[in-house]
Amino acid sequence: MRINSGDASVFTQPTAAQAADTRRSIRQYESTPIPEADLRELLRLAGRAPSAYNVQPWRFVVVRDPELKTSLSAAAYGQQQIVRAPATIVMYSDMDSALARMPESIHPDLPQDKRDAGVASFRATFDNQSVAEREAWGNAQSNIALGYLLLLAETLGYATSPMLGFDPEKVKTLLGLPEHVRIPALVSIGFAAEEGFRPHRLPAESMVEFR
Amino acid sequence: MRINSGDASVFTQPTAAQAADTRRSIRQYESTPIPEADLRELLRLAGRAPSAYNVQPWRFVVVRDPELKTSLSAAAYGQQQIVRAPATIVMYSDMDSALARMPESIHPDLPQDKRDAGVASFRATFDNQSVAEREAWGNAQSNIALGYLLLLAETLGYATSPMLGFDPEKVKTLLGLPEHVRIPALVSIGFAAEEGFRPHRLPAESMVEFR
Repeated sequence: MRINSGDASVFTQPTAAQAADTRRSIRQYESTPIPEADLRELLRLAGRAPSAYNVQPWRFVVVRDPELKTSLSAAAYGQQQIVRAPATIVMYSDMDSALARMPESIHPDLPQDKRDAGVASFRATFDNQSVAEREAWGNAQSNIALGYLLLLAETLGYATSPMLGFDPEKVKTLLGLPEHVRIPALVSIGFAAEEGFRPHRLPAESMVEFR
Repeated sequence: MRINSGDASVFTQPTAAQAADTRRSIRQYESTPIPEADLRELLRLAGRAPSAYNVQPWRFVVVRDPELKTSLSAAAYGQQQIVRAPATIVMYSDMDSALARMPESIHPDLPQDKRDAGVASFRATFDNQSVAEREAWGNAQSNIALGYLLLLAETLGYATSPMLGFDPEKVKTLLGLPEHVRIPALVSIGFAAEEGFRPHRLPAESMVEFR
């Protein structure tokens, strides 16, 4: 297992900075499966991402079953990396669940009256929104964890391919997900069997201004 | 400078996995300024995050001027970490700019006809959307880079405090940002001068399902 190996000769983790520079999307994968413990640890770590109100609206379905991968690929306009990769993570955002679980999400070190006030204020904010509005908000928050997931996977030796090209209604039906949820991305994951395109970005200095 | 130091006795970077586990929001900062080169490198690395169509809608304004920090804090309901931190990064998403720059964003290794088709298809997608719709989409994509930024800052020895509590119109007016942009977060950054709350998350196994 790569993630918990302390043996540097087997696998030395790049720094997060190195991984940010080298990461690229990969669409061809070795057939080698990923140990379930590695996937669980990766998703646990992705879930360490911060979110507003500590709401943690993200949920994950890891698809490994060959038949289900084929159906998921069909719901993603036939993208073949879903069939090729040993696993594809269907990330979804579920604000109904997040709202229901706020008493669990709010920090246990706060005094009880502040916890109660926090839960009430959070619910009041979202009770005034339509389902679509609050799910859009949860979807955006989930992308913070998606950033964590993609960068962490790279440092742990796994290649990924995040995808937005899919029919969300078909994916929900296939996996039996509730109608109200939003799917920020599908992420195929495995060991790379191609080099992929070198990363290309706009010049960093054109994106930043100092005041 | 911490980021490019090769001297492990000065600063050894934690792995991304360690940083994910230890990172917490910090609201008290040392007054020590952050070298501008470190901020530039951090934002360059955050901008390595992937985005759909490689659109890179995120832009950054780094606020360091004391008077401007005070005004920014006022636009963020008086949150004091903006005054205390040596810098606050105002991250914003600008789909107008991203659309205009698509010919630059699309991968230079693609043949010219595919580049042209990619730009046309991207613009066609967003031309059919309202400004609000496409900015909401760009805002969500920008949160992938926000995840990168927060995790990278932690590995580089910097504490952060991401904030959603601000009046976006006031922030835009203050910084002279265009009306159409969206602001996914303000992020105060500096050296921690408090321990902060221990991170608290929902049990990871309750967020993941295997199929």
